[in-house]
Amino acid sequence: MTKDNEKKRLILISNDDGINAKGLKYLIDIAKDFGDVVVIAPEKGKSGMSHSVTLNEPIYLNKISKEEGLSVYACSGTPADSIKIALHKVLNRKPDLVLAGINHGSNASVSAIYSGTVAAAREGSMNGITSVAFSLLSHDPNADFSAAAKYTKIIIEKVLQNGIAKQTCLNVNIPNIPEKDIKGIKMCRQTLGKWIEEFDYRVSPHNKDYYWLTGEFSNFEPQAQDTDEWALNNNYVAIVPVKVDLTSYQVLDELKKWK
Amino acid sequence: MTKDNEKKRLILISNDDGINAKGLKYLIDIAKDFGDVVVIAPEKGKSGMSHSVTLNEPIYLNKISKEEGLSVYACSGTPADSIKIALHKVLNRKPDLVLAGINHGSNASVSAIYSGTVAAAREGSMNGITSVAFSLLSHDPNADFSAAAKYTKIIIEKVLQNGIAKQTCLNVNIPNIPEKDIKGIKMCRQTLGKWIEEFDYRVSPHNKDYYWLTGEFSNFEPQAQDTDEWALNNNYVAIVPVKVDLTSYQVLDELKKWK
Repeated sequence: MTKDNEKKRLILISNDDGINAKGLKYLIDIAKDFGDVVVIAPEKGKSGMSHSVTLNEPIYLNKISKEEGLSVYACSGTPADSIKIALHKVLNRKPDLVLAGINHGSNASVSAIYSGTVAAAREGSMNGITSVAFSLLSHDPNADFSAAAKYTKIIIEKVLQNGIAKQTCLNVNIPNIPEKDIKGIKMCRQTLGKWIEEFDYRVSPHNKDYYWLTGEFSNFEPQAQDTDEWALNNNYVAIVPVKVDLTSYQVLDELKKWK
Repeated sequence: MTKDNEKKRLILISNDDGINAKGLKYLIDIAKDFGDVVVIAPEKGKSGMSHSVTLNEPIYLNKISKEEGLSVYACSGTPADSIKIALHKVLNRKPDLVLAGINHGSNASVSAIYSGTVAAAREGSMNGITSVAFSLLSHDPNADFSAAAKYTKIIIEKVLQNGIAKQTCLNVNIPNIPEKDIKGIKMCRQTLGKWIEEFDYRVSPHNKDYYWLTGEFSNFEPQAQDTDEWALNNNYVAIVPVKVDLTSYQVLDELKKWK
């Protein structure tokens, strides 16, 4: 990079839907207004990969394109691998911002735990970088990202103005409704809930039993109004601050009473 | 299962080192003293898989063995998949306990985030089951698990006596030293730190560039005495209560002040 570029903001982007996802293209377009952009995203979809890293296989990195202010790489690894290889092998300085998404599908409530997109942002915050994950509540590969794009831009502006506390990233979820119907942005806590799994049983042509993991989200607290699920169900964009520290300090106090 | 068995405690076991790991065999032997045991573990090593779930491939489940009080299955999926398929397809009732490990290698500090073993326990706690992950600080496939086994047994007894608060599991790490040198058990918080990655660059015989992900743990707070890393470095078994809820409530209060 030239010295000139070094004065501009450097933005690292990844996702878990893979390098060809429509949501990624929207995020790149938005980010380009804020600085130089480097994209390192999985070559294939890696939904549900959580914060996994690739230890038992080699990692390949392929440069896809390079133009003024935008470099794009496909990575054989996970979203977390993509951030790691960006920080340690590709970028010549620490980025100012890590952005992940825009994910196709909700990462609200416990889906944040399973999400590779949220993990990419968390990996950024573990490295001391201001990091945000964006998701739209539609799994449609051709979803309409126009309202999501507007709110993504607003939130990036706010994040650049205000910063985010260390070791914390933001998990942003956006309802899949027209922009005019979105009521605003709510700061929320993660909804208590779980996926009630169903395993779709099948037999292969080679007579082997197998299962597809599927299921439905169950909200344990549908009445609570301070949760991300409530905000989304009531047409708000939901922002949850996600910590790197998994410790339950409340339970820690209880454990200290054990004999 | 017979009615007789239903009166006994039901214990579900998984890990991320795979069905043939020595640490798993130790955990099974210990658990058999506490009830009927069902093991569903990845057929291959799945270290670093975090809380990932298998969405893009079918999941295979193979019964390996069945004897009085012990059934063993190998799962093609991840540790989290193994717990899910156990709860929804294999067990005829909710288990009383989910145990994961004994992992070969530390899952202290941020390694808890990358660990499939900790994720298996967290998946148990997401389903309202008392769940504990155990790790020994040695990656040696033939590590000496005798001291770890002793403390694993003590901790299972304590957990059965005291219970664990909902939506929280325990992440237990055990130093790799002789039993006589272990000073006791400390209740800890997760150490603030990160992995400083190194990507070992190589060229394949087919002339393709690739990388192996490797690195070294960096402790950001080596002086703090209430962390899991401190406890382990000072010859204590470290227990950290790990939450399902990723929300930073402190940062949430700050975010609410945004305009």
